[in-house]
Formats: sequence, C-alpha cells, structure tokens
Amino acid sequence: MSSTVEALAATPAGETPLLLRALRSEPVPRPPVWMMRQAGRYLPEYMAVRSKLSFLELCHDADLCCEVTLQPLRRFAFDAGIIFSDILLPLEAMGCPLTFGKGHGPQFSEPVRSRSAIDALRSIDPWRDLPAPLRAIQLTNARAGVPILGFAGAPFTLACYLVEGEGSKEWTATKSMMFTDPEAFTTLLNRLADMVGDHLQAQIDAGAAAVQLFDTWAGALAPDDYRRFALPAAQRALSRVKGAPTLYFTRDASPFLPWMREVGADAYGLDWRADMAHARAILGPDVPVQGNLDPQALQAPPALIAEKVRAIIAAAGPRGHVFNLGHGLVPTSPIAGVQAAIDAVRSWSWA
Amino acid sequence: MSSTVEALAATPAGETPLLLRALRSEPVPRPPVWMMRQAGRYLPEYMAVRSKLSFLELCHDADLCCEVTLQPLRRFAFDAGIIFSDILLPLEAMGCPLTFGKGHGPQFSEPVRSRSAIDALRSIDPWRDLPAPLRAIQLTNARAGVPILGFAGAPFTLACYLVEGEGSKEWTATKSMMFTDPEAFTTLLNRLADMVGDHLQAQIDAGAAAVQLFDTWAGALAPDDYRRFALPAAQRALSRVKGAPTLYFTRDASPFLPWMREVGADAYGLDWRADMAHARAILGPDVPVQGNLDPQALQAPPALIAEKVRAIIAAAGPRGHVFNLGHGLVPTSPIAGVQAAIDAVRSWSWA
Repeated sequence: MSSTVEALAATPAGETPLLLRALRSEPVPRPPVWMMRQAGRYLPEYMAVRSKLSFLELCHDADLCCEVTLQPLRRFAFDAGIIFSDILLPLEAMGCPLTFGKGHGPQFSEPVRSRSAIDALRSIDPWRDLPAPLRAIQLTNARAGVPILGFAGAPFTLACYLVEGEGSKEWTATKSMMFTDPEAFTTLLNRLADMVGDHLQAQIDAGAAAVQLFDTWAGALAPDDYRRFALPAAQRALSRVKGAPTLYFTRDASPFLPWMREVGADAYGLDWRADMAHARAILGPDVPVQGNLDPQALQAPPALIAEKVRAIIAAAGPRGHVFNLGHGLVPTSPIAGVQAAIDAVRSWSWA
Repeated sequence: MSSTVEALAATPAGETPLLLRALRSEPVPRPPVWMMRQAGRYLPEYMAVRSKLSFLELCHDADLCCEVTLQPLRRFAFDAGIIFSDILLPLEAMGCPLTFGKGHGPQFSEPVRSRSAIDALRSIDPWRDLPAPLRAIQLTNARAGVPILGFAGAPFTLACYLVEGEGSKEWTATKSMMFTDPEAFTTLLNRLADMVGDHLQAQIDAGAAAVQLFDTWAGALAPDDYRRFALPAAQRALSRVKGAPTLYFTRDASPFLPWMREVGADAYGLDWRADMAHARAILGPDVPVQGNLDPQALQAPPALIAEKVRAIIAAAGPRGHVFNLGHGLVPTSPIAGVQAAIDAVRSWSWA
C-alpha cells in the first residue's frame, strides 16, 4: 500500500480485500459494499469538477478521472471504487463521432446500420487509442487503498447505441438489423466483443482488481434472442479476460437467470426487481452475486433503508455476496441515504 | 349475433368464443389471437380518424371509439377486440386535468402529492362521469362478432402518473411518497383500486366479454414493495369485479411470477422477456396466460415471425393460452408483420 493512500476505508495491509473474498465465495464478516455510479452528479464535489469542462473532456483526462473516482471514497467508507469513465468511449475510439448534448443522452451522428459501416469500424489498441481510463486506474490504485474496478459495456448494449445512434425505449433500428440481417448484426457483435475483451484485459493489466461488464439493455430482448445474440457476445468478450474476477450486470436480469451463468462471468449483478433469495436459487446458489437495493429507496427514512439493506443481506446469505444497488445512483440520490445504506451494511455481522 | 355484424372472423353462432375457452383452460384447436394496442397509430385508417380531432376528443366520442375498435377487426382476423380508450381517462374524471401534448406523453398539470390532494379526488360513477367507453362497448358488441375486452390501468400504475404528473424512467416523486408517507400512498392506491374495480365492472355490465388490468409500471418496484403496494391494490380492484374473466398484465412480469397469482386474476399477461415455458412453470401450469411475442419482432421476415409464433405456442402448450404480443403495437409496427403473426397462429392445430 502506497504512503499516499488517503481513503478512510483502506484494507489493512496484508489482508485480501473484502470485495475479492466475496467474489470468491470465501467467508466474510459482512458483505463488501460499493455502488454503481458512486462517482457522479449526486456529489457536489463532482459537480464542481464538471462545471469546468464537458463530460467527454473529463472522461479523457486521467488525472481528473482519478480525482472523481476518489471523491466518493473520501466521503464514504466504500469497500471498492470503480474507475470514472463511460461505456461509449471505446466506440468513439473505433471512429464513431460521439456527443453528449445538454439535456440529451449520448448521440452518434453516424449510426452503424450497414455492413460497410461495420467494416469501417477501426480496431483499437487500448493504450494507444483510449489511455485515460488505464492511466486513471494506475493513478487511483496508488492512492485509494481499496480495490478499483474497471468496466466496459457489453457488446449487445454497445451495439444498441451504435445502431440506434442514441438511447431508445424500443430499439427499433437495432432490432430491425438483428431480425432482418442477423449475420451482419452478429459480425458487429463479434467485432465489439473482441474490442471489449481487450479493453477489459488492458484495465486488469493496468491494475483493476476486478472488471464489470454492463449489459444494460440486454433486457430489451426476448429470451431466444438473448441466447442467440447478447449471451454469446458477452461470453466471447469475457473469454478473452484473465487475471481478475469478472462481473456481469444487466438491468433486467430476472428472465435470463436460468441460463445467465453461461455468460461465463465470475459473479452476476442483480437489478432491484430481482428477489435476492429466489434469484440466487435459480442462478445457482454457488454463483456469487452483487446487488440489489432499489436506488430510489435511498429516498426512504434511514430506518427503512437499514431494514431493506438487512433484508437483502440476509436473503443473499453469508457467502458470495457483494452489496450494491440494483442500478446506478442518480443525480437526485440523497447523500444521507447513501450513508444510511453503507452504515447498515457495515454494521452487519455474519459472526 | 346481430345482423349488422361486419367482422370477418366472427365466432360461429352458438359456439363459445375461442378467447373465453382459452381463458377457462378448455380445449381449443388453436390459441385465440389479439394484440395489445391493435387499434392505433400503425393503421392508416386510424390516422385518418385522428387527423380530425385530438386524442382526448376521440376517447370521449363513443361512436368514433367504436369505429377505431372495429378498424383492426376489419383488416385482420383477430379473435377479440379491445375497446379503444386510455387508462388515464378515469383520473381526468376524478378531477385531475389531463393533457396529451404533441410529442409528449400524458401530463397532469396538478400532480397529486399530498393527503389534501388525495382527499380532493372525486369519486366517480362510470356511467355518469365516463360514459364513452361504456357506450362504445355496447355499440361495438352489436357489430363486431368477436368478444370485446374492456380494460383499466391498475392502481399502482395510475398512481405513478398521478404523483409524477407524467411518465418517468425513475418514478422519483412516486417512490418518494411511497417510501416517506406509505400510509398516504396506500390511501391513494385504495381510492384508485375502488374506482378501477367499479370501472371494470361497469364495462362488464356494458357487455365486455373480459377485462384486462394494465399494471404497466409495477415492474419499477422491488419485490417487497410490489407485494406491499402494487399487488394488494390490484387484488382489491379485481375483488370488486364479477361476471367475466379478468386478465392482469405488467410489462416486467418475470421477477413477480412466483407470487403473481395472488393478484387474483383469471389469467396473466406475460411480457416478451419472459420465457413462456419457464414462466408457466413458475406461475403455476394451471394458470391461463396471454402473450408474448416481442412487438419489435414484427419487423422480421414472415418466416422468422412464424417460427417465433410457433415456438411460443408450443411452449405455452394446448390449454390456457391466449396468443398476444408481450407489449403493445407501436406506430412503426409493420402491417405485414401483424398479418404474418396472425396467419401463423391461425394455421396452428392442436388436433
């Protein structure tokens, strides 16, 4: 551990961090806790950084990515950090112009909807073409004192944005391509899977203690299409990754739980709609899971938050559980609610 | 059957309609088929009607509601119609000013977020305060020749719109009220449940052959909150309904399937993410179900549509299945795809 470590919740020297013990289903006194999007707009110190530059400028500045990754670790006793970045950056590096307009989500001005557009995607070398998150992992590791996760978007979810050109409720263009030219769509998924695998591996090589694959929109698919397209693409990405535990998250996990372990991750994130005990039983009780408090429940009074946190921990059981939200924090998430949830996790004892 | 019956797929005189046989789990030669939002913007003849008046004006015109309900029955051999209306009309009748702006979804200018606002909601008498759908059911029944369904929004889903004031991804205001003043929120749900039950009963009394309760947004809830709030409210609404089969639909059914039959409906709609065979096994194989083709799959070539339709029918099995989409048709749904799906259902034979 470096002498510049500044976080309050640092793992004692010589001990394996709680996060890694939970991801290996080893005994833990309590589950480790971190929260998806724990670095972000609900924190005034993040807004202060963001007031000086755009979201994409921030994502490409390794020093500032390190800084905003550390911000929640200074304020809260989280057991892990996740590097500040965005799942769409690698697509920008592949040659797709990306913008984040005010009040809009991400937009690609040239959606990828043809075989020629797929062929025109550039192969990337993570260190050459997208160094910021890798350098940020190195910088953060030297200062955080807790494990730092890397991450990437899963191939299907990236394809959704790339084909649609923006977020969508229906993913009409994406599914049109998937249903009318499944070979081209599979080619796109495979290109993305290989890129994603290499990007995750580069993050591990840079020092990420674990990596999470976000398949946010896989839940738009019927189960047969999930098994035909999203699942094998995620599998292909993760098959390229070695040396650190992998997590797979989709925001609509429940319909896919009977087959989800075929993805080949070491652990699975559950969204807040999944019943923890039921989901573990279906997924396989030996499979580590992460989750799954409703992010909006952080609006509840502290006693109710604590009750909900304890119910999730009890249902998950003593092994193989990383406490998290069931989806990311939002700009309106109350800081007091985040604190109440962390307090409830940290006061739990399996002893 | 009236002599003015004009639909092509009319049930032969003296026979119990396929829809009702399937809802009773009686043997059928093939599943009945209808599609959620089958009257709507994907049909040019609907757009022609809508060009002359606003959506809300249409909803309050019983003759035109009958006309647009009949439109898809003229074009396609559906086994049922669903009366054209909107789940939010009863809230307007309760005294909440409702608008549908161009390019926006529905908006309530005065969101209901306090006990005084809940107390100010008017009780309604369906025939006095919302006659259009009831009169439209009578008019349509005299001409359609197939069963006509009535419907309503479930209490939790109506509360979402009423508290939020509009559609939402996060339902922040709704969940804030639910978590910080659960008694007031429950009072609101109970008021809505009683209104919804009476509205469904009035539709049955007017001649609806079955009624469907749309709990579209219940899937925003964690399972413990679903069981505490949405489920008992839907149960309460349906407990007031007699004389015709009831269906319950939510667009994120999978997490709730283990307990969903507690809602007390006669049949359950499955969204397109649910695996039909797995969902039936969990829900209870004796419980009739409806669904569940991905609406976007109607973009696929006819042969692929037929394959997907046949896979769903085979997985559902010979009894207690009403074929439908897993969510409503959208304005971009291709008419040829709707036709291909209907053809595939009608060519199925369990004999």
